[in-house]
Amino acid sequence: MQITPDFIALFTDFGVGSHYVGQLKARLYGEGVTQQIIDLCADAPIYDSRASAYLLASFLEYLPKHTVIIAVVDPGVGSDRRALLTKCDGHWLIGPDNGLLAVAINYAKEVHLQTIQFKVKPKHCTFHGRDIFAPAAALLCNGQDVPGDEVDKMTVVGADWPNDLFQIIYIDHYGNAVSGVAGDTLMFSQRIKVNDIEIPHAKTFSAVEPGSCFWYVNANNLVEVAVNCGMASKQLKLAIGSEFEVI
Amino acid sequence: MQITPDFIALFTDFGVGSHYVGQLKARLYGEGVTQQIIDLCADAPIYDSRASAYLLASFLEYLPKHTVIIAVVDPGVGSDRRALLTKCDGHWLIGPDNGLLAVAINYAKEVHLQTIQFKVKPKHCTFHGRDIFAPAAALLCNGQDVPGDEVDKMTVVGADWPNDLFQIIYIDHYGNAVSGVAGDTLMFSQRIKVNDIEIPHAKTFSAVEPGSCFWYVNANNLVEVAVNCGMASKQLKLAIGSEFEVI
Amino acid sequence: MQITPDFIALFTDFGVGSHYVGQLKARLYGEGVTQQIIDLCADAPIYDSRASAYLLASFLEYLPKHTVIIAVVDPGVGSDRRALLTKCDGHWLIGPDNGLLAVAINYAKEVHLQTIQFKVKPKHCTFHGRDIFAPAAALLCNGQDVPGDEVDKMTVVGADWPNDLFQIIYIDHYGNAVSGVAGDTLMFSQRIKVNDIEIPHAKTFSAVEPGSCFWYVNANNLVEVAVNCGMASKQLKLAIGSEFEVI
Repeated sequence: MQITPDFIALFTDFGVGSHYVGQLKARLYGEGVTQQIIDLCADAPIYDSRASAYLLASFLEYLPKHTVIIAVVDPGVGSDRRALLTKCDGHWLIGPDNGLLAVAINYAKEVHLQTIQFKVKPKHCTFHGRDIFAPAAALLCNGQDVPGDEVDKMTVVGADWPNDLFQIIYIDHYGNAVSGVAGDTLMFSQRIKVNDIEIPHAKTFSAVEPGSCFWYVNANNLVEVAVNCGMASKQLKLAIGSEFEVI
Repeated sequence: MQITPDFIALFTDFGVGSHYVGQLKARLYGEGVTQQIIDLCADAPIYDSRASAYLLASFLEYLPKHTVIIAVVDPGVGSDRRALLTKCDGHWLIGPDNGLLAVAINYAKEVHLQTIQFKVKPKHCTFHGRDIFAPAAALLCNGQDVPGDEVDKMTVVGADWPNDLFQIIYIDHYGNAVSGVAGDTLMFSQRIKVNDIEIPHAKTFSAVEPGSCFWYVNANNLVEVAVNCGMASKQLKLAIGSEFEVI
Repeated sequence: MQITPDFIALFTDFGVGSHYVGQLKARLYGEGVTQQIIDLCADAPIYDSRASAYLLASFLEYLPKHTVIIAVVDPGVGSDRRALLTKCDGHWLIGPDNGLLAVAINYAKEVHLQTIQFKVKPKHCTFHGRDIFAPAAALLCNGQDVPGDEVDKMTVVGADWPNDLFQIIYIDHYGNAVSGVAGDTLMFSQRIKVNDIEIPHAKTFSAVEPGSCFWYVNANNLVEVAVNCGMASKQLKLAIGSEFEVI
C-alpha cells in the first residue's frame, strides 16, 4: 500500500498574512486534502533560494515522519526552471529547481527525485505554488502518483553546494542571526568573527550577561549568533548574507 | 437539503499574529464549527473598505466552491451600519455594509442578500467579527438559517462603484503593487503612467531585466505593477491609493 | 472520565510567519494530537512576561471551555525556572514560571497547579515550546497525565502582582494601546493622563471625531487608548511599558 502524507507543511517567502499562503491552502482543501496544513515558515529569505535552502533543511529532522513540504522561494517563477518532487528520508519536498530543495537532497541518505509535469495550463502563469505545487501535493495526499520524469540528483541546481554555509541565512523576530553552519562543525572553543567582532560560544542565553553576544547551537542544530535580551542583528549589524570567519 | 459550507476563509485588516484573528477562530470552533478555517488575508488595506473590496472580489474565482468568507475591514464598527450576509455565485460572504462586499456583489451573476440580526447583546460592542460575524458563519456551517431581512442589492454601500478601480489597492510582501483593474480591461500594448513614469507590459518577472519595472496580469486577474527582483513600491513610490492613467 | 481539551491555543512572542510556531504545531501533530490548533497570539510583548501575562489573562473568558493554551514568552529559557501546568476555571495553561501565567492564576476562582517534569533530554536545550510544552499539551489531549509535582500557587513568580497594571501592555496593528487595567476599574467620568495628555472616555470609535483620542473598554474588558481612524501609539507616543495616571 502506498504511504500517504500525514501532514502538509508550507515553507515560503510569501510573507505572513498576505493572501498567497491562504490561496495555497484553499487550493489544497479544494482538491480534497484532509490532512492538517502547517504554516512552517512564511518569512524565508525573500528571493534568496540558497539561504532558504539551508534553513529548510534544518527543519526536516524535527518534523513528524511522512510530512510533505511545499517550498516556494522562487525569483524565477514563470521561467522554464523545472518543478521538482523529491522524497528524502521519509519526507516529501515539492518546489522549484532553483536550489531551494538542494541542501535537503544533499543531506539525505535516501532520495527519490522526479519532475512535476501537469498537462493543465494555468490561466495566469505566475503562481506556481497555488497552481502546480498544491495540486501535486494533493495528489500525494490522495494516494495518487504525480506525473513526471525521474531526475538525476546531480543535475539539480545546488547539487554542488557545501554542507555548511558560512553566512547568516535568517534573522528571527528577536534579532538572532542564524547561520548555515551545522552545530557539529564548530568546537565550543572556537569563535566567530564577523564585522571585526569576535563572538565566543555560550550554551544558552541565560549563560551570559544581558547585552552580551555569543554563538550557540540552536534548536535546529544550526550555529546562531545572539545577544541576551538584545537584538544581535542590530548590535552586530548582521543581515542575511553577512559572511563570517571561524577562528 | 440545505448546502453547508465546506470551508471558512477569513479576510481582514486585523494584522497578522495579533489576537483578533485567533479569537475569531476560537469563537467559530466554540460554536461547534468542524469545517477547516483558512487565513485568506489578514493584511487587507487598513481601514480602507473600498480598496479591500476590490482585493476580496479578486479571490473568489480561485476559492473552492461553497466557501464562506468572513470579511472585516470596518472603520465604522460600533456605529449602526448593517451587518450583511450574501451568497454570490456559490460563495457566502459575511461582513459590514460599508462597501467591503460590494465589488463581489456587483460582479456576481446570482446574488442573495440579507441582513444579520441577532438578539444577542455583546458585552462590549466593538468586536463584531468575533461577536456577530463568527456566530453567523457558525449557523451556516451547522446548516441553520441566519436571522435577518432580505436586502435590495442596490441599497448596499458601494453598489455604484465601477468594475475597475484605477488605483493601487494592495502592496504585497515583495513590493509589488496590485491595482483594482481587471486584467482583461487593458491591452498588452498599453502602458500605465504613474508618478510620471511609463510602465510597459511584460508577461512575467523573468521576461524583463532585474531592476526593470513592468505591469502584468497577476494570478488573480488583476493588473499589477512589479520590478523584477526589486521593490516596485519603493522604486516607483507607490502606496495604497496611488492613482494611475492608462496610455 | 477525564476531560480532554477541545482545542489548543498558542500564545507566544515568537513573531508571525517565523518557523517557531510552525515547529511547535508540527510537534503537536507528530505526538498524535487531533484537536484543532488556534494561533491565538504570536506577537505578545517580546521578552516581557509581565505585560504578556495581563494580555493572556484577558483572553480566557472569551475562549471556548476546555481550551489548552501553550504560552511562551520566556527570556530565561535555558535557565532552571520551572515549567508549569495549571488548570484555571476550566482552561489549561502551560508555560514557564516567570510570571506569564500568574495573572490568569491570580484571577481564577479554581486553580490546580503542577510542574512539568519530563525525563526526556532535548538535544538542544533552548526550545522548550517545541520540546517540553508541546509534548505536555499532547499528553493532555490524549487523555494522559503530565508528570510533575503539585505547586503552591503563592510560590509562582508574579503571585503578588496587582489585578490592574497601569501601563500599556500591547500596541495593536491599528496603533491602539491596550492597558493592563480592567474595564470595570474606571468610571466613565475619569480621564487617563499619559505624556501630559488627558484622554476622556468614549463608548466606541465612531462616537468621536476622526483624529480624536479617547479611552474605552475593549472587547476583552481592558482599558484601551485609541484614536478614531488614527494611530494612537504614534499620536500620543505610547509604547509597551508607558505608564499612566487616572484622574
